[in-house]
Amino acid sequence: MYELCEKLFPICRSITGNGVRETFRILQGELPEVPFEMHEVKTGTPVLDWTVPKEWNINDAFIRTPDGEVICEFKKNNLNILHYSIPVDKTVSLEELKEHIVTLPDQPDLIPYASSYYAERWGFCMSHNDFLKLKEGDYHIYIDSSLKDGSLTYGEILLPGERDEEIFFSSYTCHPSMANNECSGPSLIIELARFLNSMENRRFSYRLVLAPETIGALTYISKNLHHLKSHVKAAFNLTCVGDDRAYSLVHSRYANTLADKVLQNVLKFHDPDYRDYDYTKRGSDERQYQAPGVDVPMVAFCRSKYHVFPEYHTSADNLDFISPAGLQGSFDVMKKVINALEYNKNYKVTTLGEPQLGRRGLVPNMSNKTTYQQTLALKDLIAYADGTNDLIDISNIINVPIDQLIPLIDKLISCRLFREAAV
Amino acid sequence: MYELCEKLFPICRSITGNGVRETFRILQGELPEVPFEMHEVKTGTPVLDWTVPKEWNINDAFIRTPDGEVICEFKKNNLNILHYSIPVDKTVSLEELKEHIVTLPDQPDLIPYASSYYAERWGFCMSHNDFLKLKEGDYHIYIDSSLKDGSLTYGEILLPGERDEEIFFSSYTCHPSMANNECSGPSLIIELARFLNSMENRRFSYRLVLAPETIGALTYISKNLHHLKSHVKAAFNLTCVGDDRAYSLVHSRYANTLADKVLQNVLKFHDPDYRDYDYTKRGSDERQYQAPGVDVPMVAFCRSKYHVFPEYHTSADNLDFISPAGLQGSFDVMKKVINALEYNKNYKVTTLGEPQLGRRGLVPNMSNKTTYQQTLALKDLIAYADGTNDLIDISNIINVPIDQLIPLIDKLISCRLFREAAV
Amino acid sequence: MYELCEKLFPICRSITGNGVRETFRILQGELPEVPFEMHEVKTGTPVLDWTVPKEWNINDAFIRTPDGEVICEFKKNNLNILHYSIPVDKTVSLEELKEHIVTLPDQPDLIPYASSYYAERWGFCMSHNDFLKLKEGDYHIYIDSSLKDGSLTYGEILLPGERDEEIFFSSYTCHPSMANNECSGPSLIIELARFLNSMENRRFSYRLVLAPETIGALTYISKNLHHLKSHVKAAFNLTCVGDDRAYSLVHSRYANTLADKVLQNVLKFHDPDYRDYDYTKRGSDERQYQAPGVDVPMVAFCRSKYHVFPEYHTSADNLDFISPAGLQGSFDVMKKVINALEYNKNYKVTTLGEPQLGRRGLVPNMSNKTTYQQTLALKDLIAYADGTNDLIDISNIINVPIDQLIPLIDKLISCRLFREAAV
Repeated sequence: MYELCEKLFPICRSITGNGVRETFRILQGELPEVPFEMHEVKTGTPVLDWTVPKEWNINDAFIRTPDGEVICEFKKNNLNILHYSIPVDKTVSLEELKEHIVTLPDQPDLIPYASSYYAERWGFCMSHNDFLKLKEGDYHIYIDSSLKDGSLTYGEILLPGERDEEIFFSSYTCHPSMANNECSGPSLIIELARFLNSMENRRFSYRLVLAPETIGALTYISKNLHHLKSHVKAAFNLTCVGDDRAYSLVHSRYANTLADKVLQNVLKFHDPDYRDYDYTKRGSDERQYQAPGVDVPMVAFCRSKYHVFPEYHTSADNLDFISPAGLQGSFDVMKKVINALEYNKNYKVTTLGEPQLGRRGLVPNMSNKTTYQQTLALKDLIAYADGTNDLIDISNIINVPIDQLIPLIDKLISCRLFREAAV
Repeated sequence: MYELCEKLFPICRSITGNGVRETFRILQGELPEVPFEMHEVKTGTPVLDWTVPKEWNINDAFIRTPDGEVICEFKKNNLNILHYSIPVDKTVSLEELKEHIVTLPDQPDLIPYASSYYAERWGFCMSHNDFLKLKEGDYHIYIDSSLKDGSLTYGEILLPGERDEEIFFSSYTCHPSMANNECSGPSLIIELARFLNSMENRRFSYRLVLAPETIGALTYISKNLHHLKSHVKAAFNLTCVGDDRAYSLVHSRYANTLADKVLQNVLKFHDPDYRDYDYTKRGSDERQYQAPGVDVPMVAFCRSKYHVFPEYHTSADNLDFISPAGLQGSFDVMKKVINALEYNKNYKVTTLGEPQLGRRGLVPNMSNKTTYQQTLALKDLIAYADGTNDLIDISNIINVPIDQLIPLIDKLISCRLFREAAV
Repeated sequence: MYELCEKLFPICRSITGNGVRETFRILQGELPEVPFEMHEVKTGTPVLDWTVPKEWNINDAFIRTPDGEVICEFKKNNLNILHYSIPVDKTVSLEELKEHIVTLPDQPDLIPYASSYYAERWGFCMSHNDFLKLKEGDYHIYIDSSLKDGSLTYGEILLPGERDEEIFFSSYTCHPSMANNECSGPSLIIELARFLNSMENRRFSYRLVLAPETIGALTYISKNLHHLKSHVKAAFNLTCVGDDRAYSLVHSRYANTLADKVLQNVLKFHDPDYRDYDYTKRGSDERQYQAPGVDVPMVAFCRSKYHVFPEYHTSADNLDFISPAGLQGSFDVMKKVINALEYNKNYKVTTLGEPQLGRRGLVPNMSNKTTYQQTLALKDLIAYADGTNDLIDISNIINVPIDQLIPLIDKLISCRLFREAAV
């Protein structure tokens, strides 16, 4: 996953354009065995309350100072340009230039990431320290960009299962060179697709969508609203999943969906120190999928959450900020989520009263003061298998992680002590 | 409001009598523009489990000591008399006198307030220190009172609105010279009537009732039970609203009415240190309005709560104990309650997915790492406007005071982004 | 109760056999006035997922050491034998013997209690210190036991009341010489039967069952499932009720039965430091009665809970560990439970508004600042008697113990201020 991030990092993505298409070519190359469907949606297409914007592409950009020095070179760091800048080739005074420069006075060493998708303007981003060094004089501004009718690009993968009901994963492909708040998400999506594709039997179907944030999610929803509302059982927006800090869960609007329930359960056992945010702390595509009337049962999953980590939307969100271990932790959590969902049924014990576990070799057949406690998870699992609880409920009640319960369920089913309850 | 308290303070009110009528003449004089309906209910009228008592009036009362000193003069402080004392003019021994004197051994400087409405007796109240100085000898007792068939007096104001549904305010007019636990309540009622009368459009109708505590509330309920049960959406008993200490909310029986909900919301933002009491801490007319079978959705609102502040029902509850600022704070809270109720609808955003706020000038059209948070209240308001929440719910969920949300709602309605949901 | 424990302690009980029958003869002798029905269920009878095992009896058992010393004498302490040991009379090496000996390395002075009901083997239990002293050599093993077709013994008492609805108490009769985890339970059952038999009017019928743990409960359920499910309103498994330490409540599966509610209410007032365990801490016959599909509304009641106190299932659970005061405390709690259940109705006040308590002599007829609080329990009881709460609800809401409310209810009913509400 980290290597894939390295490949994706240098590309200048935005909400439209060739950088996005190049990104998808790399992603498809990672998973030749999996069908990866691409979509292009034309500029001007109405999508809910919005409209698909013009396509933006950029070749080069820089500022030449009065001393002849070239600064803010796009080719050195694509954060230097205000994204969606219109083309410019002119000389301006320092005073005029300053109105077009974005900096971070509180983080004076870092270049910010900024964009202006829906109001045409031009601009550059630089560190506040560099900004303070600018001298009076004439500056030559050069932006070789284009803003034209074109299309918005997104891709999706569908891995069918026994049921039409879908588990939905999303991430986005619209940020330039930022490692955690861009590359980590698509990279995890690809790894999950690989894992899901390798599963022998999938109870659920799995859909994985990569689109530009906000406008891409709105576009996807606009084209698939009925299907989303009728098929998706749980959805996970994956973003900022590559660093080594806390795990974070951003709940759905009322924290009451299957997605909330399963991810909360997995995280509390995987890392009791995980951060649990309510929906007022949202900020990525869950804003669209969970909007009133859309109501896709989505939560967001991050390591350090967007808006919270100081590197967010700056040049410090680079490849040093993420790590193979950070990505692997996110993958491990999502794998547990998938396994939990696959096994998440309402089980019912087939006996009245406790079953005699001893004669089935499931507990010791000699009893003293310590034997009862040794197989407590098994007994507690049976005690709550009354058909009213799903597996996540039972895990929560008896305080045993689902990955420890799954082998016990396999045993109980093979002994015919468990059956699936009609719900 | 404080000046009105000064006018009301000296009058000797009780649950019936001319002091009450004089009080109402003063109150009516404050609000000539508002219809103020007066009621007289005859002695002997059955009111629920009770009966309207005889009317009590008093001209004078005092004790002449063996030394010829006049003490416990009614004309100096009307707390000196046990209220509802029968007329007496006789000489008694110190021993007999002591059985008729009420003091506060724990607050030996203060004169208590005491009454005996439903058992005929006579008595005086004095400070415990003065009580201890009484010498052996004959005491002349003089009480020029009358206890005769008459009537119980109460008044009410109705300010109609678009709807027949009523918001109900009550306070009482039955205590003699006590400032917080009497004058503050009617004074706030008058100020609220003035404010409500000045509102351009009232969605709700507003009813304000002043009656003697307990027997007056029972009388009012007895005559208006059906109307109360069918029309009142939220009711507030206003008492002890003039001091500068904590704000207090005394909840309804199950803390589950609209009155509980709105006042709790307003107070938690107005003063996070407010005191939240459950119904077992009740003590004023909410006892009758919230009684089983009556079930008017009433809470009590106080600054320092009756039974709790040490000055309660003593001569220390005087004009020094209340203040213009204390009264104003109570008024401010009730004004916020009224505004919150007027705007308390279930709103629904008219778009699917987030509306594009930028093109409507509601959020900045350039994005960097700080812009999202700047207009969070607006976004959160929209995010929860799914038609299932009323405005108080949303305020509680997104943790923004309703008075900050009201201007945003006005904007969203004028942009046609919000409509009222059918509930 | 303590004397009865002394009589029961020396008997060697197991899940079947003559020790159990002798125990019941003693219990029946305590209560000649009460019908005590005995049942014998034959070896091989299927009971739910289980089968009634062979009957075990034992006359003698010991080990003769290489030095000729006799150790592990059954007649000195019946814990020395692994219960349900098959008969043996042979000489074995130390090495072989060790495989048949159970000790407690963490409590090296104590003899453990151990059993092997469903796998035929032989064994002895001894203190770990004694175990470490065993020398190399030949040991003579002698166990004069029998394991033959026979029957399982249990007994029950039914004390009918006005209603067919039953309150159910159980304990067990299957452990050898342990005082808390055996004798205390049957002893309390007998004392409760005596108390219930002496009650003038029983609203509920009361059933008290004594059977071997697990297999006896399964047998009882197997024979009475329909009756249990249709008649039992609340059930209490009484075990380890004789020591002086904490009171313990082990909740039902979802802590939502009448038994949970009443015992939790009684205990929080009886001893606020009582221990509240959820169902995952279960361990006695509530495991069967609360199993999915059986669903008898049962909780367990203990002083120190099984599995928790260090003396549990060891030779330290002897007559010094329990006390008359410990047993009496348990009896007091259960008596409060019974009284609470007998009075646990939905009451409704017959007046609208507060009743006038003064004219009925229920509150003082003179009022000053302290009088209101003096009769608060009475007023709060009335305030919540709206027909939606049962008595336990009211006690919980107003925070007054039920044994203080019962005399007030008697007064209110005799004044016709309370009636029973239709539910």
